[in-house]
Amino acid sequence: MAVVRLSHGSGGVETAEIIERLFIARLPDVFKKVPGGLGLDFPDDAAAVPMGDGRYLVITVDSYTVSPPFFPGGDIGLLAACGSINDVLMLGGRPVAMMDAIVVEEGFPVEDLERIVSSFLSVLRSEGIALIGGDFKVMPRGQLDKVIITTVGVGVAERLIVDRPRPGDKILVSDYVGDHGAVIMMLQHGESPRGLKSDVKPLVRLMVPLLEKYGSYIHAARDPTRGGLAMVLNDWARAGGGVVVVDEEAIPIRPEVASYSHMLGIDPLYLASEGVAVLAVDPSVAGEVLNFVRSLGFLNAKVIGEFRESRRYSGYVLLKTQAGGFRILEPPRGDLVPRIC
Amino acid sequence: MAVVRLSHGSGGVETAEIIERLFIARLPDVFKKVPGGLGLDFPDDAAAVPMGDGRYLVITVDSYTVSPPFFPGGDIGLLAACGSINDVLMLGGRPVAMMDAIVVEEGFPVEDLERIVSSFLSVLRSEGIALIGGDFKVMPRGQLDKVIITTVGVGVAERLIVDRPRPGDKILVSDYVGDHGAVIMMLQHGESPRGLKSDVKPLVRLMVPLLEKYGSYIHAARDPTRGGLAMVLNDWARAGGGVVVVDEEAIPIRPEVASYSHMLGIDPLYLASEGVAVLAVDPSVAGEVLNFVRSLGFLNAKVIGEFRESRRYSGYVLLKTQAGGFRILEPPRGDLVPRIC
Repeated sequence: MAVVRLSHGSGGVETAEIIERLFIARLPDVFKKVPGGLGLDFPDDAAAVPMGDGRYLVITVDSYTVSPPFFPGGDIGLLAACGSINDVLMLGGRPVAMMDAIVVEEGFPVEDLERIVSSFLSVLRSEGIALIGGDFKVMPRGQLDKVIITTVGVGVAERLIVDRPRPGDKILVSDYVGDHGAVIMMLQHGESPRGLKSDVKPLVRLMVPLLEKYGSYIHAARDPTRGGLAMVLNDWARAGGGVVVVDEEAIPIRPEVASYSHMLGIDPLYLASEGVAVLAVDPSVAGEVLNFVRSLGFLNAKVIGEFRESRRYSGYVLLKTQAGGFRILEPPRGDLVPRIC
Repeated sequence: MAVVRLSHGSGGVETAEIIERLFIARLPDVFKKVPGGLGLDFPDDAAAVPMGDGRYLVITVDSYTVSPPFFPGGDIGLLAACGSINDVLMLGGRPVAMMDAIVVEEGFPVEDLERIVSSFLSVLRSEGIALIGGDFKVMPRGQLDKVIITTVGVGVAERLIVDRPRPGDKILVSDYVGDHGAVIMMLQHGESPRGLKSDVKPLVRLMVPLLEKYGSYIHAARDPTRGGLAMVLNDWARAGGGVVVVDEEAIPIRPEVASYSHMLGIDPLYLASEGVAVLAVDPSVAGEVLNFVRSLGFLNAKVIGEFRESRRYSGYVLLKTQAGGFRILEPPRGDLVPRIC
């Protein structure tokens, strides 16, 4: 009998397969979105519902299961707030409200829950987002390991970013990639992260000014969470019907993340980030946008490659290696790290 | 050190206390709602955001943890769909879209997940509601007992039902109460439900015609889930600043639910229903509304009491007992049944 495997939850190929099997294949297209909006037919982390005045309601839900719940740079509360805020932003929405549903194990220290909720609320306060409701459930001891937080992000978009890169678009990342994934992996392996911290943070102060100033030039935007940069770029190659060509040397990766990945035989491009944006930007303004992103405090932002038309490699991601050749960057498979977010 | 107890998740007094401590007390009022909407300041299961054209977006989130996940009359998928649909309806919204986040244990049979998702999707199809997105996570074996489904319900309301009964209002229930709670309790105690089934069902076909025809006469609407009818009536007594007087004999309870509760020394008014509406209706139309509700197929609907002004008993629920006296129906405390929804 087929059973659910860890890889089904890793955000890669197997996740797409089980979602296809459970949901997409079983639902007529008319039930996959609200007319005029974006829904299950659109492979992003958020959905859109037209508001009738040209604007869109942007809405997203994610369950956060990260283990351990406290880690250098943050905790599950911070992650749950930032994750849903960033998903709203990546579709072009300005986050206005959140809801949360907590499921916690009987016996969990109230003090720890207070720390987690404080982190969660601190993001809402700093970003001016209202908490409009939620749910709270307790499972008997032994039936849940610690805590799961599900958050709903609600925003309003004047214009949606529909994640379809165009030929010539430059691919820009706002920061070092893979820090969050590396930290969680180290902790799960019982190792000390030795100063490395999760990158988890809200991207409101990056994306809102960027959308205001360059909204129509940004053809795709995503935060590379589960499945990492590799997943985002593969999604874009397929969605745009072309090839993504990336210069491996240009990708900002911290030396300690690179060396840890190397030691484990893992490509850091599969590691999750929780406070990084990847953008496909019209080439006419790419340099300007890079400078603007840096001026907003994202000093490690880099242009790492571009999207091109290609007959031969359409749907693929090509990585220009440091040796000067090319290799195909496959979409993620298997289970690199369980409970990473 | 204080720890989370099962009673914190039972939807009664202790749940209100921990939500107050974790969220309400820590957040300035300005962060508790979107201006002009309903949020944390409003003790209902859904929230509202003004859409700018006089209508409201109604949104709700709940995590469903019911154990066992399959039960007579339904399963966790059916429950997750109906629960969020009904919460949208009770605030006056017409449900238009849903999202879901599934967290499942490694090793869970895919076939069971397919059954659960099929139940979930069947409700969306029958009620004309779109599934616009979701999340799927897997926790390693032993870290979660089976499956948790979180659903987000999204609807649009022309007029909100703000759950403030007015003096003279008649209290109407649409059906037998407590069936769901009794079935789950029997299963958790290892007993056969002997023909009793959960009442779980979507209330679209009750509430949408009712709101269209009598919307302005319905001053409060709730589905009595965790905490049962007792919780709803106590909330209303406090919110309306008066007394709810209910005739115990008039409350529709199946004999098998009554006798099982009696055997366990439990009041069936604390048992959850998942397909029942409780309404506070203007007395001028209460008889008409009762007939209309019955004409929609809810043949067991009954007027069970009324809301009155009272200096002495303001905030209380008085139950007129079969012996002719009165007793106070306390709000629920403690943990009657874990993982009931």
